[in-house]
Amino acid sequence: MSIRCAIVGATGIAGQQFLSALIQHPFFKVVRLAASSKSAGKNYREAIRQEDGQVSWYVEPDYLNTYADMMVEDAATMPLEGLDLVFSAVESSAARDLETRYAEHLPVISTTSAYRYETDVPIIIPAANGGHAQLIHTQRTARKWRGFVVPGPNCTTTGLAIALAPLHRAFGVDRVIMTSLQAVSGAGRSPGVGSMDIVDNIVPYIPNEEGKVERETQKILGQLAAEAIDPANFPISATCTRVPVLEAHTETVYAALSKPASLAEVREAMTTFGGDINPSTHPSAPKQWITLHDDPFRPQPRVDRDVDGGMTTSVGRLREETVLGIGVKFVLVSHNTKMGAAKGALLVAEDLRLRGFL
Amino acid sequence: MSIRCAIVGATGIAGQQFLSALIQHPFFKVVRLAASSKSAGKNYREAIRQEDGQVSWYVEPDYLNTYADMMVEDAATMPLEGLDLVFSAVESSAARDLETRYAEHLPVISTTSAYRYETDVPIIIPAANGGHAQLIHTQRTARKWRGFVVPGPNCTTTGLAIALAPLHRAFGVDRVIMTSLQAVSGAGRSPGVGSMDIVDNIVPYIPNEEGKVERETQKILGQLAAEAIDPANFPISATCTRVPVLEAHTETVYAALSKPASLAEVREAMTTFGGDINPSTHPSAPKQWITLHDDPFRPQPRVDRDVDGGMTTSVGRLREETVLGIGVKFVLVSHNTKMGAAKGALLVAEDLRLRGFL
Amino acid sequence: MSIRCAIVGATGIAGQQFLSALIQHPFFKVVRLAASSKSAGKNYREAIRQEDGQVSWYVEPDYLNTYADMMVEDAATMPLEGLDLVFSAVESSAARDLETRYAEHLPVISTTSAYRYETDVPIIIPAANGGHAQLIHTQRTARKWRGFVVPGPNCTTTGLAIALAPLHRAFGVDRVIMTSLQAVSGAGRSPGVGSMDIVDNIVPYIPNEEGKVERETQKILGQLAAEAIDPANFPISATCTRVPVLEAHTETVYAALSKPASLAEVREAMTTFGGDINPSTHPSAPKQWITLHDDPFRPQPRVDRDVDGGMTTSVGRLREETVLGIGVKFVLVSHNTKMGAAKGALLVAEDLRLRGFL
Amino acid sequence: MSIRCAIVGATGIAGQQFLSALIQHPFFKVVRLAASSKSAGKNYREAIRQEDGQVSWYVEPDYLNTYADMMVEDAATMPLEGLDLVFSAVESSAARDLETRYAEHLPVISTTSAYRYETDVPIIIPAANGGHAQLIHTQRTARKWRGFVVPGPNCTTTGLAIALAPLHRAFGVDRVIMTSLQAVSGAGRSPGVGSMDIVDNIVPYIPNEEGKVERETQKILGQLAAEAIDPANFPISATCTRVPVLEAHTETVYAALSKPASLAEVREAMTTFGGDINPSTHPSAPKQWITLHDDPFRPQPRVDRDVDGGMTTSVGRLREETVLGIGVKFVLVSHNTKMGAAKGALLVAEDLRLRGFL
Repeated sequence: MSIRCAIVGATGIAGQQFLSALIQHPFFKVVRLAASSKSAGKNYREAIRQEDGQVSWYVEPDYLNTYADMMVEDAATMPLEGLDLVFSAVESSAARDLETRYAEHLPVISTTSAYRYETDVPIIIPAANGGHAQLIHTQRTARKWRGFVVPGPNCTTTGLAIALAPLHRAFGVDRVIMTSLQAVSGAGRSPGVGSMDIVDNIVPYIPNEEGKVERETQKILGQLAAEAIDPANFPISATCTRVPVLEAHTETVYAALSKPASLAEVREAMTTFGGDINPSTHPSAPKQWITLHDDPFRPQPRVDRDVDGGMTTSVGRLREETVLGIGVKFVLVSHNTKMGAAKGALLVAEDLRLRGFL
Repeated sequence: MSIRCAIVGATGIAGQQFLSALIQHPFFKVVRLAASSKSAGKNYREAIRQEDGQVSWYVEPDYLNTYADMMVEDAATMPLEGLDLVFSAVESSAARDLETRYAEHLPVISTTSAYRYETDVPIIIPAANGGHAQLIHTQRTARKWRGFVVPGPNCTTTGLAIALAPLHRAFGVDRVIMTSLQAVSGAGRSPGVGSMDIVDNIVPYIPNEEGKVERETQKILGQLAAEAIDPANFPISATCTRVPVLEAHTETVYAALSKPASLAEVREAMTTFGGDINPSTHPSAPKQWITLHDDPFRPQPRVDRDVDGGMTTSVGRLREETVLGIGVKFVLVSHNTKMGAAKGALLVAEDLRLRGFL
Repeated sequence: MSIRCAIVGATGIAGQQFLSALIQHPFFKVVRLAASSKSAGKNYREAIRQEDGQVSWYVEPDYLNTYADMMVEDAATMPLEGLDLVFSAVESSAARDLETRYAEHLPVISTTSAYRYETDVPIIIPAANGGHAQLIHTQRTARKWRGFVVPGPNCTTTGLAIALAPLHRAFGVDRVIMTSLQAVSGAGRSPGVGSMDIVDNIVPYIPNEEGKVERETQKILGQLAAEAIDPANFPISATCTRVPVLEAHTETVYAALSKPASLAEVREAMTTFGGDINPSTHPSAPKQWITLHDDPFRPQPRVDRDVDGGMTTSVGRLREETVLGIGVKFVLVSHNTKMGAAKGALLVAEDLRLRGFL
Repeated sequence: MSIRCAIVGATGIAGQQFLSALIQHPFFKVVRLAASSKSAGKNYREAIRQEDGQVSWYVEPDYLNTYADMMVEDAATMPLEGLDLVFSAVESSAARDLETRYAEHLPVISTTSAYRYETDVPIIIPAANGGHAQLIHTQRTARKWRGFVVPGPNCTTTGLAIALAPLHRAFGVDRVIMTSLQAVSGAGRSPGVGSMDIVDNIVPYIPNEEGKVERETQKILGQLAAEAIDPANFPISATCTRVPVLEAHTETVYAALSKPASLAEVREAMTTFGGDINPSTHPSAPKQWITLHDDPFRPQPRVDRDVDGGMTTSVGRLREETVLGIGVKFVLVSHNTKMGAAKGALLVAEDLRLRGFL
């Protein structure tokens, strides 16, 4: 029997990636769409029409027909009966109130930052810290909720946390320096990144992004303690930039390790990471969680973003690092609106289902 | 003595091009900035700050300092005393009411379409139809205005009308087919063209653009009759598209002529066009109104847009046309926010000053 | 039993699209790769390595493994035994000699222009003029070849000929004006279009392209006479430009028709076109040869190029045309390296197989 | 009296930037152009024509006329009489032999790497290490040359060395981590970066670039010892990437300092750097060697590259760094073919002239 889902924030880019990922999903079924009051009462096609009349649909063109005639409801007033789960991709300051409203009654899996930094809320990437889901019990008890909230990480955190997870597990990570080259889709659809700002250009700053990356990575790679996560204690110094690429974030990473590791050992740790995730229980999971490239010209965002359904983290240019400390440096590419947002959240849902939370 | 100007719509791209063009202008001086009520009461730098904090300034970086601390007024309530002229570049439906308010008292030279299609309002390109300015007398009398409104053409009309003007004058134009490849700056700053819509893409439709091009070109190349313009009677079939180019519209043009003309005669007509405009009275005018290229790979928007201060119309690929009718076909490039908007409007102001209207 | 194929010009973009399209094809099997002498003797991966070390592979990343270790042979000396068919995608002046060499012994289906303009050589698009294949008999007799040559059209011709075919069949086409906005992949891989020439830019000229479009379209839509094609006699006036789009050509088309047709009749003719092509005999054929869009903002190259495997011709903005003559105008998008090159040639092969030529 | 110069490698992008920078220079005059034997004997306009017929001229369009009819000579056989100086911008492995040939007789100022790593050859940035020019005496004596060779740094080194120079001077630099986002023009004109490789994409590797940056920066910021440069001993860990930007390299820099410095002290060191360079003796020098931005969204390559004639190094996002060590992190933008190549080399020439070497 299908788990009946609402997509809240269905009109944004992450929302559309949810709709794309949930077409013919074996476990989940989209039964309700919601967005801001501006969209409420329109059918979906009209709700995503821009001021100039153009329809903003950024995933597979033919999938739109599946949702075009569904009515979009007001996220603030949408009835919750008939729902088993809410996927939240709200691009606004309203996320906190909305997710609270839903979580009182239903499980909420979210791509937003509204609850990420609460002590009783885990940020989950299944292969890295699926066990943090146990914190949900604490959360429910403390908040007296029938449901719960589990957010995925920020899209820039996702690739970094996945690449560091096997290193931290095997060798310990001591210090990280990271520069991101982020795709325009990460800024959302409305207003998003204006073409005047990014054609033939780079914007060297994304508000709040760098702090999120540090805090979230530490939390994801931390240890579940009694009633909270004890964050990993390695510091991250980051510079986040926006580049003229449509989809997929590229990151250059320098990591000092706690104990020495050969490049062969690092490769082994990376390529085996996530091998315990079973595709039959996790149909959205990549076959290979980390895809390692020997070709130094890879990974490239346009070329590698859709590999493995946009769910693998592509790593290349793996080299020894000595300036930051004994460790490694590398380049990674991660699909920011698939693994880094909606499809990654769906993967969390698949994991929570297996763990009995759904 | 300087003519004291207000720039209304000062926060948009066309508004900024006004600010750029008016730095150290010999005749005009910017004394007031206005925009929507949202911007009113802020200094200019804050008024052009986007939601994410980024300052939207698209012209020479160091020119911003000249205007950064000027207060932006509400266009709807801005006092008119101390002003001799209003340049209007309002990007909204409010243009009509605002321009009416100003024109009751002051000359208004506009980049908007609010008044373009009124029978007593000329659309002026000085080298093509400067004499249409005489219609201002009719306008003032009919409307009982102390001021008047003169708009420049739509940015896509500008290059086409300039390229056709010498042909129409010398040989008569019978029929025109045109396809435009328009730059993103033409869509303005907010929301403008989202990068998700245009990177690696073309949008084959710009609402209302094609009709404007036909109607405006016919009016500009028409004859001044008693109390109106008798439009040129050649039809134009146009397809207007948006392409991933920052600035400058490219147009492919096919024109059937009323009487046969050799390519040499067409070249002569084009290259001598505008030769009677004097740079000392028209400091914003291009040295060459139409720049003809023999190299078939030119004109190119990135390469040719800034030639002659962004004020020339670059024409290339001049060939005989026989399918539409006996005539010529060619490609043109025109800077859409300079000659096609603010700086073109400034040139109209220079022309009206010489003709005694300012 | 599989038809054993060689891909000649396997290192170029069209060659790679052949390799992509032939992965697990039910009828055809790639048994040999050939290219210029520069590549000969290298394995495929090395043969596509650029001077700076980067591997130039522009189709599905994981398909490279299938071909990476195959030896690339010299197209000029490749043995022909063991082959049933040659697909030629040579990007050079050598195409004529090479295709002659192969055609003496084997069927050759080509994406090059080497033989396109010979009187005894048909240019085939199955749904438009599959019957022209009968000219192969004439060709073989005249040239005393055991094989034959059948080229597909130029990539810019393809979409135009497909869109005009149903109009010409149903109403007659009298005159055409076309402007193309062509993708960079059409210029091939080496040297191709340099990024310095096309970022934030348009190049308004592609040598020889416009003449090809006219000549080929007339031939494809012509009538098979005794021993040659009697070309359709409508003239085409074209302007071909290069734009910053990776894949898929966009074309604005104005067509005067011989007899009046309502937009509804034109739509009907377009949407039923190709309906007689059977997917079981033509696995590369699109489900819909022409996909019509009501949304005026479509088609868009990035959005629509991969619909139906890159094999449909997307048409939108269908409107009445009156300036060129009574008829229609529209915008089309066609994938230039799939339907417009390799996969289109494969579709020709499927058609010739059904007709007994393979 | 003018110093008579030859531009060798005149057909490449750096060569063209020399031609642009030397239009009406007060001290230098271009009297001879040279390139590879392939270009020899052609006039300049023909020499820069691509295979498809397009002229490759990437600087001010109207400057081409000044050079179009000059004959291009073969760099290997060009006579040296009548010359006082050679500017070398050869993009090939031939640079070493050619520069040797010239240096036996004439001063050679080069944008190539041919001689950069020789112990008796300084790499000069006037404001940073103009005094290293004294090494020319050693070089001439050792090599028995009447002339000499002085190269400028690699374009990616330039901005980094300039930004670090005042920090190293005032506080000492201990360790540096840098990620570059490099413009396509840095790869030269032929073949350069193909558009298929970079539209909507990033290439995470530029062969040899990272090693050059480390070695050159250490040398430039080193101390002139008896007969060689004693390099600065701080290590640099770099990742160099190519991004879809036409001109100007962006770099994210993390620098640990030897002694603590407040952000105010760092700002003071940066903004006063180069203040002793006199514009009357160095007409190519920027007014401000380092332009500091408080706006965190700056610097941006498209916006800031042409500030101060493309000669300033724009620095922004200045923040404290603690992960690499006590120090600072920031983002810089440097025009790679102006300050980072030809115009930077011209500035070296102006400096050597003042020091009596020319």
